[in-house]
Amino acid sequence: MQISEFRQHAHQLVDWMADYLTNLEQYPVRSTVQPGDIIGQLPASPPATGEAFADIFRDFQQVIMPGMTHWQHPAFYAYFPANSSPPSVLAEMLTATLGAQCMIWQTSPAAAELEERMMHWLAQLCGLPAAWHGVIQDTASTATLCALLTARERWTNHRINEWGFGTEKFAIYGSTETHSSLEKAVKIAGFGRQALRKIAVDQAFALRPDELAAAIQRDIAAGIHPLCVVATVGTTSSTAADPLRAIGAICQQYGAWFHVDAAYGGSAAVLPECRPLFDGLELADSYVFNPHKWMLTNFDCSAYFVRDKAALLRTFEIMPEYLKTATDEQVNNYRDWGVPLGRRFRALKLWFVLRSYGADGIQAHIRRHNRLARYFEQALLADGRFEILAPVNLNLVCFRYAPGHLAEAELEVANAQLMERINHSGQAFLSHTRLRGKYTIRAAFGQPTVEQSHVDQLLGLLREHL
Amino acid sequence: MQISEFRQHAHQLVDWMADYLTNLEQYPVRSTVQPGDIIGQLPASPPATGEAFADIFRDFQQVIMPGMTHWQHPAFYAYFPANSSPPSVLAEMLTATLGAQCMIWQTSPAAAELEERMMHWLAQLCGLPAAWHGVIQDTASTATLCALLTARERWTNHRINEWGFGTEKFAIYGSTETHSSLEKAVKIAGFGRQALRKIAVDQAFALRPDELAAAIQRDIAAGIHPLCVVATVGTTSSTAADPLRAIGAICQQYGAWFHVDAAYGGSAAVLPECRPLFDGLELADSYVFNPHKWMLTNFDCSAYFVRDKAALLRTFEIMPEYLKTATDEQVNNYRDWGVPLGRRFRALKLWFVLRSYGADGIQAHIRRHNRLARYFEQALLADGRFEILAPVNLNLVCFRYAPGHLAEAELEVANAQLMERINHSGQAFLSHTRLRGKYTIRAAFGQPTVEQSHVDQLLGLLREHL
Repeated sequence: MQISEFRQHAHQLVDWMADYLTNLEQYPVRSTVQPGDIIGQLPASPPATGEAFADIFRDFQQVIMPGMTHWQHPAFYAYFPANSSPPSVLAEMLTATLGAQCMIWQTSPAAAELEERMMHWLAQLCGLPAAWHGVIQDTASTATLCALLTARERWTNHRINEWGFGTEKFAIYGSTETHSSLEKAVKIAGFGRQALRKIAVDQAFALRPDELAAAIQRDIAAGIHPLCVVATVGTTSSTAADPLRAIGAICQQYGAWFHVDAAYGGSAAVLPECRPLFDGLELADSYVFNPHKWMLTNFDCSAYFVRDKAALLRTFEIMPEYLKTATDEQVNNYRDWGVPLGRRFRALKLWFVLRSYGADGIQAHIRRHNRLARYFEQALLADGRFEILAPVNLNLVCFRYAPGHLAEAELEVANAQLMERINHSGQAFLSHTRLRGKYTIRAAFGQPTVEQSHVDQLLGLLREHL
Repeated sequence: MQISEFRQHAHQLVDWMADYLTNLEQYPVRSTVQPGDIIGQLPASPPATGEAFADIFRDFQQVIMPGMTHWQHPAFYAYFPANSSPPSVLAEMLTATLGAQCMIWQTSPAAAELEERMMHWLAQLCGLPAAWHGVIQDTASTATLCALLTARERWTNHRINEWGFGTEKFAIYGSTETHSSLEKAVKIAGFGRQALRKIAVDQAFALRPDELAAAIQRDIAAGIHPLCVVATVGTTSSTAADPLRAIGAICQQYGAWFHVDAAYGGSAAVLPECRPLFDGLELADSYVFNPHKWMLTNFDCSAYFVRDKAALLRTFEIMPEYLKTATDEQVNNYRDWGVPLGRRFRALKLWFVLRSYGADGIQAHIRRHNRLARYFEQALLADGRFEILAPVNLNLVCFRYAPGHLAEAELEVANAQLMERINHSGQAFLSHTRLRGKYTIRAAFGQPTVEQSHVDQLLGLLREHL
């Protein structure tokens, strides 16, 4: 493809992209295809010779698009959102064109220094300690793995990195509501799933510090070292916030690494009224939140902060001859801050987003979503047939249809069917979880373009499909 | 930013992007900025209110661009290339706009099924066993970690995932030329760096099977289990290829997991004349190569193949309630195939690239680079003042200026200075390594737009800066 052709096709795509964003609501939110529908339309073998772009783009529209679930649709209420925004997409266009591999400073100084500055900006926006050191990771799963590994190496003075596990035993603590990525990280880091203590939660689904302290004391008595506690601000099931200050104090008392996972909830720290959820965060050793979830920035962009930069670097650093450069002592070489070596230029989209919206624009974005969630909650309560299953502290509402005449087993079926009917309609997409054993429908109001009218539509859908 | 504004700005960017690709050669390949130059121009705090896109884009051009090293420049000969291409950039524009999070089938069926089919296409293009199962990972570092973890869990029947390390001892084998990501993965997976055996290489920098067998026998005699052997096709320093068939036979004999890292070299498997480098690959348990290096596809796109899909899934699978869906038994949920949960729609760019170029276009791309490397090698030899330090089997030439009158210590300084002068000129970008203790300049001819005229320019630069 010649550059002149690229220019022409790219202009064509821009019009398609703008039209797509304009017409998003005309698509079914969740794809309606069945397993095998898409792959059955794709030739089993690659073409022997090149094809015209017109044919490729036609197939993108005819074959791929029906198989897309539309994550930017305003009525996407499932899981957590994965925000994009126009300035973020613009930055991704430039990032793809530059095609820079940003593993070390020399391979793109601007990428390394912009990343450093953007982490300063995020820290200020969110009220994080200025002394923390930030880096962009791909996902919170990887960031939590980094935290566990750094904790592991700090406590053993890098003995496991050097010699492997010895006879010491470790415990890692989360709550019964902690994200599954902690269990994955515990396994990857070689502790074994049995080293994970899932501490009980209170009525608001927040980790109980008394239970945590008791578990740690039991472990210590059994000769097991309390290595790391992972607290969450904004759990996946219900956006519960663990009490950071109390947990932090326990971590300090017992010398445990304190990691805070605010993958989703972290963006809300831009709001003064949400800061109480983060009270005690300054006690953390490491912290992760995902601008790619709720801060208008395309996936992947997970912001990981660590207090002890030296411990992080010593955990990951490898210095082969072919990666040595003259500036190694003066700059951040982010390849040593995580698992992968290669890195995209991910700071650019964050810069475009933060400048395009400004601090007040980001705040307005988050605040509007929180308000919509409370509006939805009130409407459900006013209806009288619904039950709210968790406190609404951010923009997620956990609920179920719960008329008095149905037994628990019937409620389970009724709510699963209700959700599936709505999802099948293509007019909204909800997801579910289980809270205290109850089948729970989740509605997260986090789309850049979601308005009160969409919430009213969702309420109408619920009544219609009951 | 309204969609109408987005449309306008995106069209503006497209013209900038096409102009950039047209005028790439006018930029210095390696950025000429000094540490701190960029960050010093970036405000310490984010703006309180949103800024106009014109201002952001102006700063992108004035502040960021001088700090970019131009990875798509035809005279970028450093490291290994990170190919992009016009159809790949077009796909990234669409991926960013859709903003889909492709962690499981339901969250974008087309992404999951296109990924499955693209892995079939790559397997066919590269002559991989049809029964292997492929998945896109971010980098080869992560893929190699996956291989080690799967080997760990398969051998212990998932006991380490469940209970952590016991008293057994493991050894992992690479060569002295194996990429540093193996050492990183060995540490992350909890084996400890001392578990890594760096086996000696032969005159062509390929792992010596006799030394491998001897090391394994020593370990077994010492009660250490030979867990995994990592062979490389296309080492980072010199693109050496380890003898896969002989290594595979040893792995079979001792029950070791056989992982092949062809992160860079793997793209060359599209050429019949390069297939001998991959002889014995069918013996591997897992395999990784990076279309984002040498197959015209934007980073990140690392293709990981595994023979035993069940072992891979059992290693990573976590099934919380909020991720359960009705189709879990029928489809590939790629979140269980690696470390991160969240996933971009990365198959789209591969589809655009493979269809745009076709098999013969991809072959021509690789073949041209290999030919340019041999042309450069011959020119250096004809000059008489240069020494070729490793066999040129792909598109990398390892060389040094070595006139007879200089001692070894002088050669070291002379070559480091020669490389730095050329890199500083901005007219080409080379990197270095060390082969048998000798300071070695590396020139990789892998850019989509590199032509023989560029190689002639590089020869001129070398003569000029001697």
